[in-house]
Amino acid sequence: MSEEKMVSLNTIDDQLIKKAADEGIETMWDRKKAMKAPCGFGEKGVCCRICGMGPCRVSPVAGKGAQKGICGATADTIVARNFARMVAAGTASHSDHARDIAHVLHMASRDGNYQVQDEKKLIALAQEWEVPTEGRDIYDVAHEVAEIALNEFGKPFGTLRFPDRAPAPRRKIWEELNIMPRAIDREIATIMHSTHMGCTSDAESLLRLSMRTSLANGWGGSMLGTELSDIVFGTSTPRMTEANLGVLEEKQVNILLHGHDPCLSEMIVAAAQDPEMIKLTEEVGAEGINLAGMCCTGNEVTMRHGVKIAGTFYQQELAVLTGAIEAVIVDVQCIFPSLAPITDCYHTKFITTSPKAKITGATHIEFNEEKALESAKVIVREAIENYKNRKQDKVFIPQSKAQAITGYSNEAVIKQLDRVVNSNIDPQGTVKPLADVIKAGVLRGAAGIVGCNNIKTKHEYSHIEIMKKLIANDVIVVTTGCAAQAAAKAGLLSKDAIKLAGKGLQAVCELVDIPPVIHLGSCVDNTRIIRLVSAVSEHLGVDNSDLPVVGVAPEWMSEKAVAIGTYVVSSGIDVFLGITPPVTGSPEFVDLLTNKIEDMTGAKFFIDENPLTLADKILERIEEKRTKLEARLAKEIDYGVIKPEEEVEETKELA
Amino acid sequence: MSEEKMVSLNTIDDQLIKKAADEGIETMWDRKKAMKAPCGFGEKGVCCRICGMGPCRVSPVAGKGAQKGICGATADTIVARNFARMVAAGTASHSDHARDIAHVLHMASRDGNYQVQDEKKLIALAQEWEVPTEGRDIYDVAHEVAEIALNEFGKPFGTLRFPDRAPAPRRKIWEELNIMPRAIDREIATIMHSTHMGCTSDAESLLRLSMRTSLANGWGGSMLGTELSDIVFGTSTPRMTEANLGVLEEKQVNILLHGHDPCLSEMIVAAAQDPEMIKLTEEVGAEGINLAGMCCTGNEVTMRHGVKIAGTFYQQELAVLTGAIEAVIVDVQCIFPSLAPITDCYHTKFITTSPKAKITGATHIEFNEEKALESAKVIVREAIENYKNRKQDKVFIPQSKAQAITGYSNEAVIKQLDRVVNSNIDPQGTVKPLADVIKAGVLRGAAGIVGCNNIKTKHEYSHIEIMKKLIANDVIVVTTGCAAQAAAKAGLLSKDAIKLAGKGLQAVCELVDIPPVIHLGSCVDNTRIIRLVSAVSEHLGVDNSDLPVVGVAPEWMSEKAVAIGTYVVSSGIDVFLGITPPVTGSPEFVDLLTNKIEDMTGAKFFIDENPLTLADKILERIEEKRTKLEARLAKEIDYGVIKPEEEVEETKELA
Repeated sequence: MSEEKMVSLNTIDDQLIKKAADEGIETMWDRKKAMKAPCGFGEKGVCCRICGMGPCRVSPVAGKGAQKGICGATADTIVARNFARMVAAGTASHSDHARDIAHVLHMASRDGNYQVQDEKKLIALAQEWEVPTEGRDIYDVAHEVAEIALNEFGKPFGTLRFPDRAPAPRRKIWEELNIMPRAIDREIATIMHSTHMGCTSDAESLLRLSMRTSLANGWGGSMLGTELSDIVFGTSTPRMTEANLGVLEEKQVNILLHGHDPCLSEMIVAAAQDPEMIKLTEEVGAEGINLAGMCCTGNEVTMRHGVKIAGTFYQQELAVLTGAIEAVIVDVQCIFPSLAPITDCYHTKFITTSPKAKITGATHIEFNEEKALESAKVIVREAIENYKNRKQDKVFIPQSKAQAITGYSNEAVIKQLDRVVNSNIDPQGTVKPLADVIKAGVLRGAAGIVGCNNIKTKHEYSHIEIMKKLIANDVIVVTTGCAAQAAAKAGLLSKDAIKLAGKGLQAVCELVDIPPVIHLGSCVDNTRIIRLVSAVSEHLGVDNSDLPVVGVAPEWMSEKAVAIGTYVVSSGIDVFLGITPPVTGSPEFVDLLTNKIEDMTGAKFFIDENPLTLADKILERIEEKRTKLEARLAKEIDYGVIKPEEEVEETKELA
Repeated sequence: MSEEKMVSLNTIDDQLIKKAADEGIETMWDRKKAMKAPCGFGEKGVCCRICGMGPCRVSPVAGKGAQKGICGATADTIVARNFARMVAAGTASHSDHARDIAHVLHMASRDGNYQVQDEKKLIALAQEWEVPTEGRDIYDVAHEVAEIALNEFGKPFGTLRFPDRAPAPRRKIWEELNIMPRAIDREIATIMHSTHMGCTSDAESLLRLSMRTSLANGWGGSMLGTELSDIVFGTSTPRMTEANLGVLEEKQVNILLHGHDPCLSEMIVAAAQDPEMIKLTEEVGAEGINLAGMCCTGNEVTMRHGVKIAGTFYQQELAVLTGAIEAVIVDVQCIFPSLAPITDCYHTKFITTSPKAKITGATHIEFNEEKALESAKVIVREAIENYKNRKQDKVFIPQSKAQAITGYSNEAVIKQLDRVVNSNIDPQGTVKPLADVIKAGVLRGAAGIVGCNNIKTKHEYSHIEIMKKLIANDVIVVTTGCAAQAAAKAGLLSKDAIKLAGKGLQAVCELVDIPPVIHLGSCVDNTRIIRLVSAVSEHLGVDNSDLPVVGVAPEWMSEKAVAIGTYVVSSGIDVFLGITPPVTGSPEFVDLLTNKIEDMTGAKFFIDENPLTLADKILERIEEKRTKLEARLAKEIDYGVIKPEEEVEETKELA
């Protein structure tokens, strides 16, 4: 990794990094420098710390150095176990996130802080789960649905409910692979057990266990997160907003909302509009309260309220360095512990709120869902009262921001598609227009570009270069997480970006009235993408793996991303990684991920740290899948009868 | 670690290690040599692989080298997260083990392979859980109890049931610390979430989360494992057996049962007695089927059937090296992947049976609980038919074994105690005699010596030296797991060992008719120990932390041991570790474990790799606790009113 690649993309980041240096404040770039070379064993995944006889580090080179751990575990075993545990941790994070929302739905009431915002979606889910709705109070229905949802985490028998939503050929593959997920938390426990010293050593078996657990995320925890958030907080519709650190206001109380769980951030949004808070803001001499989001919390509040986006994961320290933030309010996941010492250098309050994520040096004000608004007001008050402590000489707000449209739910996407439906011929409210343009080749395909930032690469360079290249080649892009915020900052979520698209995509964007890169939400909302893909598959009567669609995580860093990537591939969609996961110490496991898994799922992983060649590979694969799709459609194969394996063989011949 | 310390204890091991060298077969001692020095960062716990920005390794020395990970995580955070994940994995292993037994109870039937063997225990548990029993078919009761048990893993509301069994002052401490465990798998998921990148960084908070999760093991998964195993397979009673590799038979079909879950091994025991199998044994010219157990499966089958003990964890490769084993049959946990290549050097079949633990190179015959006996017979047949392939010139069975009494359940212990009850004054069936001799000082205290083997120390030297020293000083020893098997091999589980005990313990052993070291079962059965301690506490009206009892894990190696140690300390019982856990890179976390945790729980960890000084510390601490107990009993403090923290303060003054 060259020094040059490590610096950030934007001038505004450079300015703030310089400010940090001038003020003697440590940032992650300093820490990266101090770290020197990363451990080669760890990077390749061949370091095992699973029992107390170790740690064991085996040589990734055959025949040279220790080839096995004390117990006899090979590089293949060690790599596969470490990978499986990443999947388990990522799944656990999304599981726990969704559980909180299910609990909130369970406590929702007509006059409570949490209410049912999308009754239609609740009724639809109730009907899907065979909960009676006729003549019932909507809150009775809500509580019963919430209870069923809560049991998805721990029911002792059977498999999860949402996998039923997948296209039939996909479900068949899962059944045949024996990876239909059981209760969500059970799959996490099983992985932790199966990777215990002296359990599973077989790499392929560990991959299958990982796939099953990942499905408990994508078609379990994460999907519950999305569905229940829409029900409680409202299904999002497109909204204009602005993105980048320039959204911070000189004369307002700036509150940075960072983390993931909308249960907190929704209440902060409400509290910030409370007359009492507005009055207090006036009293302290501020012109208002300016909420700015970061990471997935930023996505959650921008999609439902148009709250401005301060920035992405890697900018969390930079935001504080502006000296203009009264409070950083966080809940769970992706929060740098360094925010404690860095906020100490300013007047900024760093407020943790979740018992699941207490951070040393932060002010902990536990958020109480039972008294949600009251709790949120206590927190917001802290921020407002801190306005007077802001030191003007330490303030530097970079004047950079971009316009963006955020908040496309699948429902919103379909509504846009309705604009081009000839209502004399076709029904409204389906994905047919999307399927048609993909089938016809007007759009060559679709890409979900998702994930984090990673200091191993030039921040956001990969996200943006890949997005630009794909849209220029008539591949529509949907995006979530920090990737979506990168797109927002780069102006790609605005209709102005249509000019960057190829002719086919341009035409579609104009007709449907959408930008070429579409914001689909937070990282749990990747389930919107797999559902959209599944809807197109079902419409065309094919499997997901037949479609020219891909998932891309150009700058991933979190275990959640590993879990997401695995459920996306398990759902039949190729995943392109711009950061190499710690697996290269096992040629067998690399071969499983990038080759053999395709025999199982019809999709695989591609790994390339160069975003430009990664984009080429995406385009190439999309064309390959187009050929497969044509063959598939021409033959009109009945997936219900023919085994998917034979099927894949046949299609390969055709293709 | 000196070379000398790495060699094994017994001559017979040395003979087999030499055989391996002569035959060019790799054992763990060879791998240990090839590994060279272990990674210093990993050993100290300061290596973080939790996100894809790393791996990060921070310096354990303040002010020198990288002090923080990329995200700002300190050594304290990294160590505490790694520790928490060990607790989660250990808890998951016991959880999954218990779940299998609950499922088996759920499928038990009057004419099925799995039946209710201990109706009395089932009825007692049903009554504890308020399941109606009057006039009901015992199997209806069993299925309802099983269903409640299964819901303990994933119920969405409330806390676990078994913590209600703890003494009142202990429950109060858990409530005040907010560590009362919720559903078992949920606690595992929560740990995996809270240790995700950007969640909890605070070391004390991570320790509390670990404590809660560990309680979901000790007073959840493990306790369910013990209870339900007793119900389905019978509550054990004392039995004579033999231990060490000398139990293998020259002229019989030797089957090594290795792993943990009695659902499999019980059926293998039944299959081995099946007339069809006996006939087949005759046909192949063998004089019988000789089952020999290893690891906790060995404990499970010896305690209920007197099956001989082939050896401990570290002897698994050595057992195969005898060349006399027809099949190594395994299920889950602590199984060396090296058994595949090593069995390949002999005629020995290596048969894996669990989908949770497939091992590369093994023959996988999946055990089907629905057709348990049939399934077991298929496996046993493999072994019998393999007898003809044994190569006599490769056989070497060391002629060493010891007599042992195994299989004391708490019920059996109490039955022995009844021998000294004056039935005119006292009721039978209580722990009063035990409490009396502890209170009087005839026994200075009690120690639970448990856990694994670890190549970092001279195998079993620590187990045996500590046991000998404690019994010589009138501390009665109860033991489980591989520690128990070490004791069996050393002759300490026989009444002959009474002569090694101090005068007080000798007198007790003679009167009660027990050996000075008492076999309490497998590693899930450590819950028998905490229940026994709790019963004495309740009898005396004190808390566990007031008693002169300790837990000792002289040679631990597995994550389960970390979880066990944590629940034992959380239950108010000191834990003495003979192997240093990977925490020394964080002085704060070491201080939490070895000091501050006492303010929370009344107990703490002691770490010393020298077994002789560790034993001294145990004896010292026992005397310290005796003083505390006297003070406690003299004051007759009401735990229900006084806060435990104030209480601890007061007691310290007194002591």
